[in-house]
Amino acid sequence: MDEENGQLRWHRRTELPLFLASMLYLFCYAVRVLAEGLSEGWRDVLLAVTYALWSLFLIDYLVRWRLSGQGLSYVRRHVMDAIVVLLPLLRPLRVVRIYETVRHRRAHARLTLYARVIAYASMSAVLLGFAGALTVYSAERGAPGATITTFGDSVWWTCSTLTTVGYGDITPVTPMGRTVAVAMMAGGMALLGAVTGSFSSWVIQTFTLDQDREPPGP
Amino acid sequence: MDEENGQLRWHRRTELPLFLASMLYLFCYAVRVLAEGLSEGWRDVLLAVTYALWSLFLIDYLVRWRLSGQGLSYVRRHVMDAIVVLLPLLRPLRVVRIYETVRHRRAHARLTLYARVIAYASMSAVLLGFAGALTVYSAERGAPGATITTFGDSVWWTCSTLTTVGYGDITPVTPMGRTVAVAMMAGGMALLGAVTGSFSSWVIQTFTLDQDREPPGP
Amino acid sequence: MDEENGQLRWHRRTELPLFLASMLYLFCYAVRVLAEGLSEGWRDVLLAVTYALWSLFLIDYLVRWRLSGQGLSYVRRHVMDAIVVLLPLLRPLRVVRIYETVRHRRAHARLTLYARVIAYASMSAVLLGFAGALTVYSAERGAPGATITTFGDSVWWTCSTLTTVGYGDITPVTPMGRTVAVAMMAGGMALLGAVTGSFSSWVIQTFTLDQDREPPGP
Amino acid sequence: MDEENGQLRWHRRTELPLFLASMLYLFCYAVRVLAEGLSEGWRDVLLAVTYALWSLFLIDYLVRWRLSGQGLSYVRRHVMDAIVVLLPLLRPLRVVRIYETVRHRRAHARLTLYARVIAYASMSAVLLGFAGALTVYSAERGAPGATITTFGDSVWWTCSTLTTVGYGDITPVTPMGRTVAVAMMAGGMALLGAVTGSFSSWVIQTFTLDQDREPPGP
Repeated sequence: MDEENGQLRWHRRTELPLFLASMLYLFCYAVRVLAEGLSEGWRDVLLAVTYALWSLFLIDYLVRWRLSGQGLSYVRRHVMDAIVVLLPLLRPLRVVRIYETVRHRRAHARLTLYARVIAYASMSAVLLGFAGALTVYSAERGAPGATITTFGDSVWWTCSTLTTVGYGDITPVTPMGRTVAVAMMAGGMALLGAVTGSFSSWVIQTFTLDQDREPPGP
Repeated sequence: MDEENGQLRWHRRTELPLFLASMLYLFCYAVRVLAEGLSEGWRDVLLAVTYALWSLFLIDYLVRWRLSGQGLSYVRRHVMDAIVVLLPLLRPLRVVRIYETVRHRRAHARLTLYARVIAYASMSAVLLGFAGALTVYSAERGAPGATITTFGDSVWWTCSTLTTVGYGDITPVTPMGRTVAVAMMAGGMALLGAVTGSFSSWVIQTFTLDQDREPPGP
Repeated sequence: MDEENGQLRWHRRTELPLFLASMLYLFCYAVRVLAEGLSEGWRDVLLAVTYALWSLFLIDYLVRWRLSGQGLSYVRRHVMDAIVVLLPLLRPLRVVRIYETVRHRRAHARLTLYARVIAYASMSAVLLGFAGALTVYSAERGAPGATITTFGDSVWWTCSTLTTVGYGDITPVTPMGRTVAVAMMAGGMALLGAVTGSFSSWVIQTFTLDQDREPPGP
Repeated sequence: MDEENGQLRWHRRTELPLFLASMLYLFCYAVRVLAEGLSEGWRDVLLAVTYALWSLFLIDYLVRWRLSGQGLSYVRRHVMDAIVVLLPLLRPLRVVRIYETVRHRRAHARLTLYARVIAYASMSAVLLGFAGALTVYSAERGAPGATITTFGDSVWWTCSTLTTVGYGDITPVTPMGRTVAVAMMAGGMALLGAVTGSFSSWVIQTFTLDQDREPPGP
């Protein structure tokens, strides 16, 4: 019981600071990728901050593992946590959890479930899209034969990918860029599934209410 | 109570005229974009009408705000209304609300829920697609390296985008055109979600009826 | 009552012959489009058969209208019938109704609802795709700058459109080809909606059964 | 009854070995396609193993048919089995059934239904994608005008197809490659349907639970 409490207390105290740290991480990454004219000194500072933040995420993971009192089974049961430590750019996606926590403190839900799912899907899409566009841009920039040459191109490509439209007027050509792209396509499918699922559930719910309200006549 | 009534009365009296005004706005915009050989005089007339209509929408928004008796919280709670004032081309999408209002006066629903959702989605798609095709065409026309060179091209591109097919044989290249395109992709996803959700709900409903009709045998 | 019976009797007697006639229409159209080395004489025969079949469809529509005893309201209530008279290539899509009729005679359903929806969607997709590929091919063939140059190309393009994949490596360029293409995109969306909806309903149904089978709880 | 038992016993004993054989078949096929510098001797060995495994699958099918005690109606009722004998590359897709069998032995389900559907869809997508990428690569490699020139290209194209994104920057050009591609597009649609359906069912389930938990008040 005490261990459980230790975990919960750690979780509650670190959640918000870690989320802000992950946003800072994303910001530092973005500056390093986008600010081309940055002096060598500033680049080093940004890299140092990036590594410091990453160490923080690693320490948090190890502390949680320790507090859980579990052995290797912890790693197996919290695969997402390990992924998020290895790829800190995905960490801001936890915004959903933060949002949920904050929302629950306000005593009652303000949004219906489907509106919430669409809100989460949108937030996730924006964060995933931004991190993905940065990574693909930094991988493609300067590659021979690349069609994604500006960050604007990368954002445009990202939007067409996440909505599964897929124009293909510009596409990544480097192995790194394509690997990230595949992850984004999967994200696009999940996004489409979430939007469709919410719509579907909303239609069904509305229909059921309509039916109940009407007299059960012939 | 009186304020509530004031709002309702205002709403009921202005709904239809404002909808017609928004259709006129779309029409004026379309003529300005498509009629290339228009004399300078006519262009000015159209521009004047456009601004007059826009003022009308703004006044309507301010009157509603006033009647609501709320402060800034009104803006936060009616985000869609503010968007529609800033981008009057999206205003005809309110056709759904008009349609609902008209339908309710006729005492009983003539269409089942899923047919209605598909009808709304189709109407929204046509209006959104028309406004989008116009805007993208006016942004791309004349841009260096543009592949969308006629309004027909723009409509073709719009259809492939809204259905999330996304051929990419012709795509916008200007920042303005791409920004509008992203909004249309999002619209395409919502459209797909609506169609899928309706189908889904129809299948489930039909299935449930089928099941109820059959004997509950072994 | 007698009129109702007249309609029903006409419907029952003409349904299967008209379906076979519509398949023959599709076949004649296909031969005229695909058999390029056909002698002038045979082309005329095919055209004559095509017109004869079309007259048949028109007569059937007029007889039904007459039997219904309704005025213009018949046209409004049976929009699909009018469309199918104007575009007889879409008529084989009625296979669903034929299939339903045949199935009901066999006393009990052999397929569950979702399997049936997927079967209908597949049949519709094949027939719509075949008619669409033919029409687009006949419109694009010989057009300047066309990328769809063989019937194989047209089928390939059709598949990528109906599944909403949309490669865009080859696309129609003529107004006629693009108009048909837009109809096929809409068909692709409906197909995707049907497949997704069936899956969705199947998952929900299976889940509900699973839940009912398990003991209700801790 | 005895025949039923014979079938069941055969099924239970052969299921796992046959699954491993199908994975070996996929592996041999992959080596033959990808290892270009392979000596003639090794190629022959691989071909021999491939044919031996295929004979095994055929024998299994015939034995099942025999044990069923049914005539030609067996073929009609087990169409999938016949397809899987003709195209052994699709056989690993049966992993779902193996997985189910293994899972059921462990006394209770560890994953909820929607997680399971997503897990199955992912496993199927990976296996279908791998087999498809191999086949398309072997068909396209060396074809004149082919844009898919490396296995990496083929995998990239496969991912964009299965998620229905469909960039079209590289596409198959040979009839064989395109035929496989159409099957993969259909697989992509089913995949999208499964993901969407699961999401949808999850949203509805969560919503229903939420509703039940709340007081039924006005």
